[in-house]
Amino acid sequence: MPKKVDHEARRQEISEALFRLANTRGVDGVSLRDVATEAGISLGRIQHYFRTKDELLLFALRHINHMATERIRQCIEALAEDPTPRTVLRACCAGMLPLDPESRAGLLVAAAYYSRAVHDPALGAEARDGIPKLRDFFTDQLRLAAARGELPPERATEDEAMLLISLTDGLGSYVLLGVHEPEKALDLLDRHLERLFEVRGDAGSEAGP
Amino acid sequence: MPKKVDHEARRQEISEALFRLANTRGVDGVSLRDVATEAGISLGRIQHYFRTKDELLLFALRHINHMATERIRQCIEALAEDPTPRTVLRACCAGMLPLDPESRAGLLVAAAYYSRAVHDPALGAEARDGIPKLRDFFTDQLRLAAARGELPPERATEDEAMLLISLTDGLGSYVLLGVHEPEKALDLLDRHLERLFEVRGDAGSEAGP
Repeated sequence: MPKKVDHEARRQEISEALFRLANTRGVDGVSLRDVATEAGISLGRIQHYFRTKDELLLFALRHINHMATERIRQCIEALAEDPTPRTVLRACCAGMLPLDPESRAGLLVAAAYYSRAVHDPALGAEARDGIPKLRDFFTDQLRLAAARGELPPERATEDEAMLLISLTDGLGSYVLLGVHEPEKALDLLDRHLERLFEVRGDAGSEAGP
Repeated sequence: MPKKVDHEARRQEISEALFRLANTRGVDGVSLRDVATEAGISLGRIQHYFRTKDELLLFALRHINHMATERIRQCIEALAEDPTPRTVLRACCAGMLPLDPESRAGLLVAAAYYSRAVHDPALGAEARDGIPKLRDFFTDQLRLAAARGELPPERATEDEAMLLISLTDGLGSYVLLGVHEPEKALDLLDRHLERLFEVRGDAGSEAGP
């Protein structure tokens, strides 16, 4: 294997050791030494790949974001041909919820990273990195839905996209914490989508006469 | 001062030192020794009040929940006489968002606590503790609104209460992370409330003919 590929593969293996720790005991207070033990390598060896815990968390977060994007892409591809924008949005949101061990580990690492990112501009930038792209994709789907007559046109906005993303984030946190069962989170998501996509037969306060 | 009161006051002083750390550098990786330094006392002295970081976090979380309840109560009391249920709900949700340093510190400690609570049943129970009470209060307000003809009756449910609470939680996380400005979070909250409380003039799909 070329050296560069090998280096990258090692880094992925190490970040997967972090994911296992995230799933079993969380990452708060976890040291590089703990990750080295979990990965079955020495502390010196791990420091060859990551000098600090923040470096490892940053790499792990990028890896997670990549996996999450892949998962959402697969969710969309698994839909029937020509899905409605609403179906696409629902699949994306479901892909963001911790409904399986992989997405659960991802959200746990992201949560650990999150409380550091609030105080570190560089980490914060990375944590926010994927959100504008997601918002734009959601907004495009809303515009498409409006063009198809499936959404009141005044709702095809970035604000509605961010409302949906913020809600999904909140639902995901509550699933991890055990407040909601995963099914209940999907249920509440559907309730929000139902009301968002409701095309009123008559003139409401927003649509005018 | 009686000994018991003094003990409690000391514990509050120590947890306030933790809040200051939460606001300036976060609490991930913060040790009891760091908190002792911030509080200006010795490590031995702090361990007289809290044996472990988890004990301190647990106390701090209870203290935060108490302050948050107080803040929400004050928000409601500050409203004009006979506020509508919608106004009460909006005040509660605004009180849950990190709009000032106190609520910001509270949410940061809660976030740090959160990633531990996911893996510890006792801590998890405490983190979930206030939610049923909040859900019941929100549900009561929704029922009152429906009785006053200000909310479609089929929306006066626990699910709608949990949807609103989950959304507010997600909005709060995004404000801390710098994704939303506080004003934008309030704006998105209002958008959700607007649609929730919309009484349709005509028969929609839910309300029947």
